[in-house]
Amino acid sequence: MKKIAVLTSGGDSPGMNAAIRAVVRKANFHGVEVMGINHGYEGFIEGRMDLLDLGSVGGIIQRGGTKLFSSRCPQFKEDQFQYQGIEKMKEAGVEGLVVIGGDGSYRGAMELTKKGFPCVGVPGTIDNDIPGTEYTIGFDTALNTVIESIDKIRDTATSHENSFIVEVMGRDAGDIALWAGLAAGAESILIPEEAYDIDEIITRIKRGEARGKKHSIIIVAEGVMSGSDLAKLLKEKANITTRVSVLGHIQRGGSPSARDRVLGGRLGAKAVEVLLEGRGGRAVGIKNHQVIDYDLEEAFTKKHKADLSLYTLSKELSI
Amino acid sequence: MKKIAVLTSGGDSPGMNAAIRAVVRKANFHGVEVMGINHGYEGFIEGRMDLLDLGSVGGIIQRGGTKLFSSRCPQFKEDQFQYQGIEKMKEAGVEGLVVIGGDGSYRGAMELTKKGFPCVGVPGTIDNDIPGTEYTIGFDTALNTVIESIDKIRDTATSHENSFIVEVMGRDAGDIALWAGLAAGAESILIPEEAYDIDEIITRIKRGEARGKKHSIIIVAEGVMSGSDLAKLLKEKANITTRVSVLGHIQRGGSPSARDRVLGGRLGAKAVEVLLEGRGGRAVGIKNHQVIDYDLEEAFTKKHKADLSLYTLSKELSI
Amino acid sequence: MKKIAVLTSGGDSPGMNAAIRAVVRKANFHGVEVMGINHGYEGFIEGRMDLLDLGSVGGIIQRGGTKLFSSRCPQFKEDQFQYQGIEKMKEAGVEGLVVIGGDGSYRGAMELTKKGFPCVGVPGTIDNDIPGTEYTIGFDTALNTVIESIDKIRDTATSHENSFIVEVMGRDAGDIALWAGLAAGAESILIPEEAYDIDEIITRIKRGEARGKKHSIIIVAEGVMSGSDLAKLLKEKANITTRVSVLGHIQRGGSPSARDRVLGGRLGAKAVEVLLEGRGGRAVGIKNHQVIDYDLEEAFTKKHKADLSLYTLSKELSI
Amino acid sequence: MKKIAVLTSGGDSPGMNAAIRAVVRKANFHGVEVMGINHGYEGFIEGRMDLLDLGSVGGIIQRGGTKLFSSRCPQFKEDQFQYQGIEKMKEAGVEGLVVIGGDGSYRGAMELTKKGFPCVGVPGTIDNDIPGTEYTIGFDTALNTVIESIDKIRDTATSHENSFIVEVMGRDAGDIALWAGLAAGAESILIPEEAYDIDEIITRIKRGEARGKKHSIIIVAEGVMSGSDLAKLLKEKANITTRVSVLGHIQRGGSPSARDRVLGGRLGAKAVEVLLEGRGGRAVGIKNHQVIDYDLEEAFTKKHKADLSLYTLSKELSI
Repeated sequence: MKKIAVLTSGGDSPGMNAAIRAVVRKANFHGVEVMGINHGYEGFIEGRMDLLDLGSVGGIIQRGGTKLFSSRCPQFKEDQFQYQGIEKMKEAGVEGLVVIGGDGSYRGAMELTKKGFPCVGVPGTIDNDIPGTEYTIGFDTALNTVIESIDKIRDTATSHENSFIVEVMGRDAGDIALWAGLAAGAESILIPEEAYDIDEIITRIKRGEARGKKHSIIIVAEGVMSGSDLAKLLKEKANITTRVSVLGHIQRGGSPSARDRVLGGRLGAKAVEVLLEGRGGRAVGIKNHQVIDYDLEEAFTKKHKADLSLYTLSKELSI
Repeated sequence: MKKIAVLTSGGDSPGMNAAIRAVVRKANFHGVEVMGINHGYEGFIEGRMDLLDLGSVGGIIQRGGTKLFSSRCPQFKEDQFQYQGIEKMKEAGVEGLVVIGGDGSYRGAMELTKKGFPCVGVPGTIDNDIPGTEYTIGFDTALNTVIESIDKIRDTATSHENSFIVEVMGRDAGDIALWAGLAAGAESILIPEEAYDIDEIITRIKRGEARGKKHSIIIVAEGVMSGSDLAKLLKEKANITTRVSVLGHIQRGGSPSARDRVLGGRLGAKAVEVLLEGRGGRAVGIKNHQVIDYDLEEAFTKKHKADLSLYTLSKELSI
Repeated sequence: MKKIAVLTSGGDSPGMNAAIRAVVRKANFHGVEVMGINHGYEGFIEGRMDLLDLGSVGGIIQRGGTKLFSSRCPQFKEDQFQYQGIEKMKEAGVEGLVVIGGDGSYRGAMELTKKGFPCVGVPGTIDNDIPGTEYTIGFDTALNTVIESIDKIRDTATSHENSFIVEVMGRDAGDIALWAGLAAGAESILIPEEAYDIDEIITRIKRGEARGKKHSIIIVAEGVMSGSDLAKLLKEKANITTRVSVLGHIQRGGSPSARDRVLGGRLGAKAVEVLLEGRGGRAVGIKNHQVIDYDLEEAFTKKHKADLSLYTLSKELSI
Repeated sequence: MKKIAVLTSGGDSPGMNAAIRAVVRKANFHGVEVMGINHGYEGFIEGRMDLLDLGSVGGIIQRGGTKLFSSRCPQFKEDQFQYQGIEKMKEAGVEGLVVIGGDGSYRGAMELTKKGFPCVGVPGTIDNDIPGTEYTIGFDTALNTVIESIDKIRDTATSHENSFIVEVMGRDAGDIALWAGLAAGAESILIPEEAYDIDEIITRIKRGEARGKKHSIIIVAEGVMSGSDLAKLLKEKANITTRVSVLGHIQRGGSPSARDRVLGGRLGAKAVEVLLEGRGGRAVGIKNHQVIDYDLEEAFTKKHKADLSLYTLSKELSI
């Protein structure tokens, strides 16, 4: 290959820029040119792209978001538009594609590969929910944003002796809630993977109060229920008053953490290696500290599993 | 005076601990002992307090929240409980009180002073809404928390070319919205002090779009309307889709900024000076960089005015 | 005027970008075009500049450093090169210049004004040492960087019961040392404006030890002496062992604080106003919360005075 | 066992408090009491300790440093003092000890175990240099502190087009330099594990300059040489002028990152498990995301190896 392209797709995550930078520089290191496609698959269909040289990815490693923009593109599910995009790429001499995004983005990449245009997937999402890789790019930064927010909330919780419910991201995956809850010393954590027991949560709060503790922090992943619904439940069942904080979009942004930058760099570089070896339809990931590649299809057909030993630990430590 | 007390009351704010530290050390410097009353006026009524020596306020200058806890105390409005608290103080040899809090807390301080127990008020609130002082302790930290959050949201807004509404604190005072909006380069700012013109906001968004700008940040103070109500309004009137982020309680906490620590130190020390001069019923504040004291009653009878020149400027700079 | 230019000169400071943005947008608001000169006076001499439109200053308000680069330019002291630059400007239709920088940069601006090319100075430096304005753009961010660093150092100081000397910037002005020292609760502060008394410093450390305090933080402005020289002095005179941390260049960078962004916005806008009124040879500044303008010459002929009431206060609070 | 103790020893690291909290809570969960020994082995010898109950470790998970203080204790190398400490423990009914610290601290723990007092080691050091565990508690926070500092320095480097040398911690282990260098996009990284080639560094700088890049960041681990020595070398050999920043002690402190808090929690809890099983002379660690335990002696007889694949990658990405 002499020329490849890179795009970001789905929700943005901190470290995507580090991955873009690595794709460009690793490819350049091997004498291969890189085109940056703007606005994800939408730009792919329309062949909207620019050459990314070494300088163009300077000064982005520390930036949140994605330099290449992202978008949702429902059109892209149709074969016709996929073929159109491939055509645009071929016209421009582009022979392969690195897709940085979540599992939805991986499906598109698999479709393109099947149609003869080799793609490699790089896991970019804060949710840490892509099967086959232990971590996704952006997860670590999101965790740190969440715990810094909870630390702030705890200042008020402690000063006023109030209990707070903090709603964090995670529709199907409880990783953010679980890790952040453990890191912030939350009294209770509710994740989609485990049925919650409202009576146990109430018991924990009451037991804390009985020994003089006057504030609690409860973390709930949005996939379980909303923070305000949980507040209502606690009020109705046990007359416990709580305040609710929904962290929302601040969880997606910010300068990437050291881990996310290193992970972005390693996985972006690996994706280029795999692509240059002519192996499309692969996803890259990290497993036992080694960068690996595996069948792209696994990433959206299998199911991500959160490390539930952390869940058990969090219960033991928040007695 | 040989012994005074200090309490924090109302919503906690970053820098309250710096003020407590200054009260203790300045008083100690003059050979006067300081009792720390826990849980605001509730603790005052019950005489719940401990001696604060030099060491007990070590290592707190950088902590958010308040070491002395805070609480709302409806009982305290009744004369009977005020007299009870004064009695407790006298029994313990306490001759005066420094009250760190917002304007609600100042009312109580005035009542006590009128009943013969001299109090001095120190402005501790993130809202910057206390008349007679240009800044309140905690405002600067809250501003920085808000702009860091908006910077994160902007990463996503830019990457996805979405518009965001960010709801910030401020029921009656638009200072947080105004300063943070200007500092974060928000496209529109809605504050309680100025009637908003929904058509103008829509025009700004459309004008930005027309020249290629694909995202906007709109800041709304909670006192104007909720972020989600504003989102509905924009949808109904102009079919503009926005995402909403409610910053909520994270605005109150966190390690205080340099300004808030210095302000806490200066005002806490000044409060001791005023009290030791036997001048109760005063509030301390900052005006033209000088620490001042003024009639405590002014602080809750007059009205705080936001600096509306910033509002005009923000409109000019976000064309 | 129909077209003006803007440059940054001298050491960079956080908030310069906010000021550049304000210059461009305020001028555009008045229908005036702005050219951005790259690399300070060096670029001025060579007429190296680009049109800055509204979009070109989007997304920079939160960035440290300066988008326009900066440089020292000894050549610029010579009349010949000043005339050459003015000629370049005239050729390009540029009728006036906003100079963002320190007092050294102001001298050049005055020279150009005297030669018929009107300039207005905007105070951009972390040192807070420009006479005529109470604050300079970048000072507040530098303070916050310094206190965050000291907070980290204090974690180790407390854990190991060691004393630390922290050397901060400030050759002639002690503002950073003074404010940061007060904000961080430093036990001693050494500034160029006040003669230090090594015996007093030693007494403070020993007095703290005597009452059980086992760590101290001493802040020294680089203009007084180096941290390592102070460490030697303490060792020789009183056998006190200290560790030294030189904060160095991290003090200049980073995303600007809310205050610095607002200050940059206000002063940049004011500079345009003054320039469009045809009033060259002026500096803009902030005094009693009002943006003001004053004779540019004052800014480098008078002497900045630190607020020494803070020095007295810091001594009282660190007893 | 009914009662155990915990101490921290050697250089403090962020996350030690999270580990202490986990030790206490996990032990309490199993009905076992925990004594907190102050000042490391010095306190052990003298039996200086307090009961740590659930409440006493509340509000420390987010604090840098160590609540239990740390110290170097040369005395402790002597058998006599080791026996004395064991005697003190037995008198107080303490049956085992968790030692949180670096490899030096592990030696002491092994000695005690051999003398019949079972100890388990928890890796607490920012250097990431303990064999047998992939990560040590504090490393991740230190990395993030370093890259935030470099991001600030890069603001100035970019604005002024200067090259900077940043000296980071790491006498024998290059992990901080390596990870931080990769995460910050450093142009060159010097670590103790790999011989540096000054000519290659010079070539990199010159090559960057040739293609228009005017600033470089070079990271050097203190174990290779000092930043100022490297600056001299570059000046002498190639007339390249650089500025030097020595990050120093700020690398040790600060609120721990999410990873370090989770790691502290997991390893602290594991240490209690191992100790309660009566298995002294073990170290706990993390390997392939599993908490493990292994022979304590390995931790100071084997040699830690940095992941040199990151070194290769950094060279490829900074072409």
